[in-house]
Amino acid sequence: MKNDYKSLSHIMMPKSVAIIGASDKPDKVGHVILQNYIDAGYSGKIYPVNVKNEGTIMGLKAYASVLEIKRPIDLGVIAVPAMAVPQVMEECGRAGAKGLIVVSGGFSEVGNTQLQDQLASIAKKYSMPTIGPNCLGVMDPRSRIDTMFLPTYKIDRPKIGGVSFAAQSGAVGSAVLDMIGSEGFGLARFISYGNAADVDEVDILNYLGNDKDTKVIVYYMEGVKRGREFIDVAKRVTKVKPVVISKGGVTEAGAGAAHSHTASLAGSSQAYEAVFRQFGFTIARDLKDLINYAKIFDTQPLATGKRVAILTNGGGIGVLATDALYNNGLEMAKLTKESEDSLRKMMPDTVNIRMPLDLVGDADDKRYIDALSVVGDDPNVDAIITIVLFQTPGADSRLASSIVSFASKLNKPVIGLSVGGSYTHSHKMMMENEGMPVYESPDDAAGSLAALINYSRYRKGIA
Amino acid sequence: MKNDYKSLSHIMMPKSVAIIGASDKPDKVGHVILQNYIDAGYSGKIYPVNVKNEGTIMGLKAYASVLEIKRPIDLGVIAVPAMAVPQVMEECGRAGAKGLIVVSGGFSEVGNTQLQDQLASIAKKYSMPTIGPNCLGVMDPRSRIDTMFLPTYKIDRPKIGGVSFAAQSGAVGSAVLDMIGSEGFGLARFISYGNAADVDEVDILNYLGNDKDTKVIVYYMEGVKRGREFIDVAKRVTKVKPVVISKGGVTEAGAGAAHSHTASLAGSSQAYEAVFRQFGFTIARDLKDLINYAKIFDTQPLATGKRVAILTNGGGIGVLATDALYNNGLEMAKLTKESEDSLRKMMPDTVNIRMPLDLVGDADDKRYIDALSVVGDDPNVDAIITIVLFQTPGADSRLASSIVSFASKLNKPVIGLSVGGSYTHSHKMMMENEGMPVYESPDDAAGSLAALINYSRYRKGIA
Repeated sequence: MKNDYKSLSHIMMPKSVAIIGASDKPDKVGHVILQNYIDAGYSGKIYPVNVKNEGTIMGLKAYASVLEIKRPIDLGVIAVPAMAVPQVMEECGRAGAKGLIVVSGGFSEVGNTQLQDQLASIAKKYSMPTIGPNCLGVMDPRSRIDTMFLPTYKIDRPKIGGVSFAAQSGAVGSAVLDMIGSEGFGLARFISYGNAADVDEVDILNYLGNDKDTKVIVYYMEGVKRGREFIDVAKRVTKVKPVVISKGGVTEAGAGAAHSHTASLAGSSQAYEAVFRQFGFTIARDLKDLINYAKIFDTQPLATGKRVAILTNGGGIGVLATDALYNNGLEMAKLTKESEDSLRKMMPDTVNIRMPLDLVGDADDKRYIDALSVVGDDPNVDAIITIVLFQTPGADSRLASSIVSFASKLNKPVIGLSVGGSYTHSHKMMMENEGMPVYESPDDAAGSLAALINYSRYRKGIA
Repeated sequence: MKNDYKSLSHIMMPKSVAIIGASDKPDKVGHVILQNYIDAGYSGKIYPVNVKNEGTIMGLKAYASVLEIKRPIDLGVIAVPAMAVPQVMEECGRAGAKGLIVVSGGFSEVGNTQLQDQLASIAKKYSMPTIGPNCLGVMDPRSRIDTMFLPTYKIDRPKIGGVSFAAQSGAVGSAVLDMIGSEGFGLARFISYGNAADVDEVDILNYLGNDKDTKVIVYYMEGVKRGREFIDVAKRVTKVKPVVISKGGVTEAGAGAAHSHTASLAGSSQAYEAVFRQFGFTIARDLKDLINYAKIFDTQPLATGKRVAILTNGGGIGVLATDALYNNGLEMAKLTKESEDSLRKMMPDTVNIRMPLDLVGDADDKRYIDALSVVGDDPNVDAIITIVLFQTPGADSRLASSIVSFASKLNKPVIGLSVGGSYTHSHKMMMENEGMPVYESPDDAAGSLAALINYSRYRKGIA
């Protein structure tokens, strides 16, 4: 039955959580997870479980087994040695848990496929959707679920937002999550699913596709086990929201490494890319593109036209951005005569009325907004790249804020491009926190805009 | 006479500077430049010159003309209206100035070619090498020369180092200089040369090629006026030091924009790239690659072999780095049997002895150094990528410091790859400040290593 997807809602938004393997000892994984729940301010019930413990753990009443809790358990988080996992899962099943996360390692990734099969069959027997084993679990800033067993100070935790991120690899997962946390956009859900013994890429894509809090799906994977079902779900999901995908193991050597890592059978690069593109996925060829593309999809409207206007306060960067447009399959917009006449009236003599529109080094907020108001209304312009070099005297936080505020009223994509150091970076963050993606190199800007436009054309059925 | 290059040494390391157009008024370019000299702690003589002034400027004795100074003047920095530039240059010539920088705009970039020709002929008449007009001038952290007329708080000033950066465009120049300032490597010279009326790309490449403080040359250009001479100099320079070049105007539309910007006649992308590669240039296709490549050339030894070993504490990033190697024309190293045996003895059972070598999530400094000591000595390994995910418990500043310190003793390139947010970024900076380049995405790391290896092969005559 191809629509028999596993629901993850009790895992992502549980009313109660049992943490099996919870501990007072700071070096234990179960300690860090329990600490995270307490630190994050999780408002549901927390039940620490440890077979060796009969008193309290971190101030909470502790249980020797989930069977002793005798109250409803939505989610069980399991952090015990691999050999003990089957018994703990059985107990969770009998206690009526509605979903599990097994963070423990020691299964198929070290050749222990039998133990992993046992895990999968217990999950099935009790109809308990189970994420893992060998994973970091999940994070959800809305419900304050956080099973990451990595020290909080080492990973920037993202704010609440519309981007969901799923990763087979825990390492890639935590590193990219950390990148997201240091960018200006927010997270809906994070899922690190490891060996995928039960819940797999098909279930996750289906869940995130239906999830109303998820606006953009970002996916790192090394292989797909149920190819046909994955495509069936993908076809449906990419019609309603963008899916950005990064695939590890696209070269022969990389595929070998992936097999050793998560026992994934990686297909050839060409085969995957052809399929991914056909079904409307956006392919990120490098990790940083996961971030670059996520933030434009999260904030900008769809646009099917390829005619891009460029405003700049530095000629050279305008030249490089023009090159980058064409290198990414886009083209320079040609303004209408009316627009050119309006600009000629508004702009000082030092501004040459042609694209890229160089507002020159002394441009201030008024000049940028005048230009944006004309270009924004021009029917020959499908999208806009606003270059601001913050090294110039007129470029300050008022300019940054004026641009974001004006751009948000236009019904076409407007993105920023600002190259520089710490002063520039702080203004980029300011603009991103107000909802406009800002890129730090011409190719990143044009490549991200191309990703948005190509996906928009897929959505509208334009080849 | 093809060897008649202009010497820039009096411009870069002057014993005395006259700033013509200096002013007490904070909004004047001449004010900012004078302020920069004072702030930077320039130890030579400073003579403020302003035709309207007869007293002091910013506490220094001021002169109405350079002719009144009556002492040797190495460098004249001219920041007066375009129409006044010829007369000021004549006076500098008669006062015996040994070099000039004209930051004033209003020449060929606005169609005023006649005035620019006049400037060029005065420079020639007095044999005064003249940078500009329409430029930001130069910066030299050693001699504390700084003619940048942009507010200091907006641009991170780089520390002293071995990378020299020349840019035709002031905007690209200041933006990239700002990027350099926020990275862990240092600057030798910065030259923004604008319209290149007198000193041009040939003179600059020649000067930087002979300059003992310059280890790596980084160049942004929009066009070359003296193609044949440029190639003659390039052939000589790329035999002794790397030249990383970014060319604006490589697409037809970009070339049109470049022509409007600096009146450069940009040739086709293919023609330029073919020539650049043939003569040993390293081509940066995006601005961020100027930085990526500069820092590996600045710190790492040459290596002609393409066999790269990868150490990691996260499997997924190892997979992506493997893909990135092959996508950039490199290959995975195969360790000798001896190395494998040594590693098997040193490593815990959880570490699978194959490339990429996954030291797994609990790897600490000891495990990394053990692995580096074996891999570093292996004759089948030409270069090493050390991936550290700082999200993991064992990865801290001691690990970072141990790796850099050990790597610096190996006679092969060792670069870092660390993906993440603020904790990661601070460790990246720490490692870069100690001399190891650290990249934040697999493709940046492998692409930069490929640039180093390809240049090394050019140097050794290996196709």
